[in-house]
Amino acid sequence: MADAMKLYGTVLSAYVSRAKIALNIKGIKYENLEEDLSNKSADLLKYNPVFKKVPVLLHNGKPISESLVIVEYIDDVWKGVPILPQDPYERAIARFLAKFIDEKCIPVIKAVGSNGDEKAIAEACEQLQILENQLKVKGTKFFGGDNIGLVDIAADFIAYWHAIREEAAGIKFFTEDKFPKLTKWADDFVNSEAVKNTLPPREQMLAFYLKFFGKANGM
Amino acid sequence: MADAMKLYGTVLSAYVSRAKIALNIKGIKYENLEEDLSNKSADLLKYNPVFKKVPVLLHNGKPISESLVIVEYIDDVWKGVPILPQDPYERAIARFLAKFIDEKCIPVIKAVGSNGDEKAIAEACEQLQILENQLKVKGTKFFGGDNIGLVDIAADFIAYWHAIREEAAGIKFFTEDKFPKLTKWADDFVNSEAVKNTLPPREQMLAFYLKFFGKANGM
Repeated sequence: MADAMKLYGTVLSAYVSRAKIALNIKGIKYENLEEDLSNKSADLLKYNPVFKKVPVLLHNGKPISESLVIVEYIDDVWKGVPILPQDPYERAIARFLAKFIDEKCIPVIKAVGSNGDEKAIAEACEQLQILENQLKVKGTKFFGGDNIGLVDIAADFIAYWHAIREEAAGIKFFTEDKFPKLTKWADDFVNSEAVKNTLPPREQMLAFYLKFFGKANGM
Repeated sequence: MADAMKLYGTVLSAYVSRAKIALNIKGIKYENLEEDLSNKSADLLKYNPVFKKVPVLLHNGKPISESLVIVEYIDDVWKGVPILPQDPYERAIARFLAKFIDEKCIPVIKAVGSNGDEKAIAEACEQLQILENQLKVKGTKFFGGDNIGLVDIAADFIAYWHAIREEAAGIKFFTEDKFPKLTKWADDFVNSEAVKNTLPPREQMLAFYLKFFGKANGM
């Protein structure tokens, strides 16, 4: 019997995309269940009672929550193209960088609102520079090497969502001039097979952020 | 040649103890380097430039930071007594609960100050109840089963530090009456071989928290 895979998520979420990208890398088919986050389903609340958040992966009836935990689970269960490095030290560094992206990088990037606070922008650039330097030192196409790995997946917000958010806010600090390696990486990442069909349509995402920043006309 | 292991930390930190417990479980000898967090060493800043925090494990000259990343690294490299479950689903649940402890449980517990805010206490109890229920459902001595595992290690603050913090604050909500399983677990955990020599002396920890809550006499 084939595995029964269901993914509870929302197309706008970079965290949900992480799970979708991992499933795509392994070539796993799944049923995509779109949640309305303003009216969460009974299933979502049952399967993730602790955080009540998407994504939740349901594998043969067993729920797994938290995007990076899901990605590691998928890599643990399905062999084939690896998502985490095989070497324990490289694996530790990948986990460290994924944690850095979640706990430091994304929060400071999101702290830059639409008012152009220079201090917030400087702090966001400082964190992005850490990722830029990683790519420079590695000299590879992706953080994972030739293929997309855990750190690439964790950084999906930076590769796609962030530029749309900048456009909506009317502020641009993630530039090719400042971050040439990250810019090239973002382009390669969003256009790769495992990623492109997981991303929300640009117009839909832009409309969301314009509303978020109070800039939507008649929305 | 034996592995060269150095651990940069401070005896008062529950995060540093996590790394020490994992090293003890595997029977790994290490050089303990006590940091002064008000005057961090050049080594610490060099080895963890991103977070500038303890613990940092230096294994044959290669640094690993972030306590849970260190614990997983130790489990990846040294076989013997496993720290993470072997089954991928159980491993995902352990990672999820460790993340829950770090991101939700410990923050709400620490949010209870010395003023006895009832709302904060209720929220802390709600999160502790999730761990209490886990132990009840599993019916095992530790979250890891018969042996200490990732979740037990992640919860070391709850097992030891928290009761001393409550004493210093003059507030008691983690009671045997409300949390019988967690209370028994905490007792077993702090008295287990791998754990007990990693814990800071009770009087030193109490003095720290009394100062923290502004209750120290002449300190």
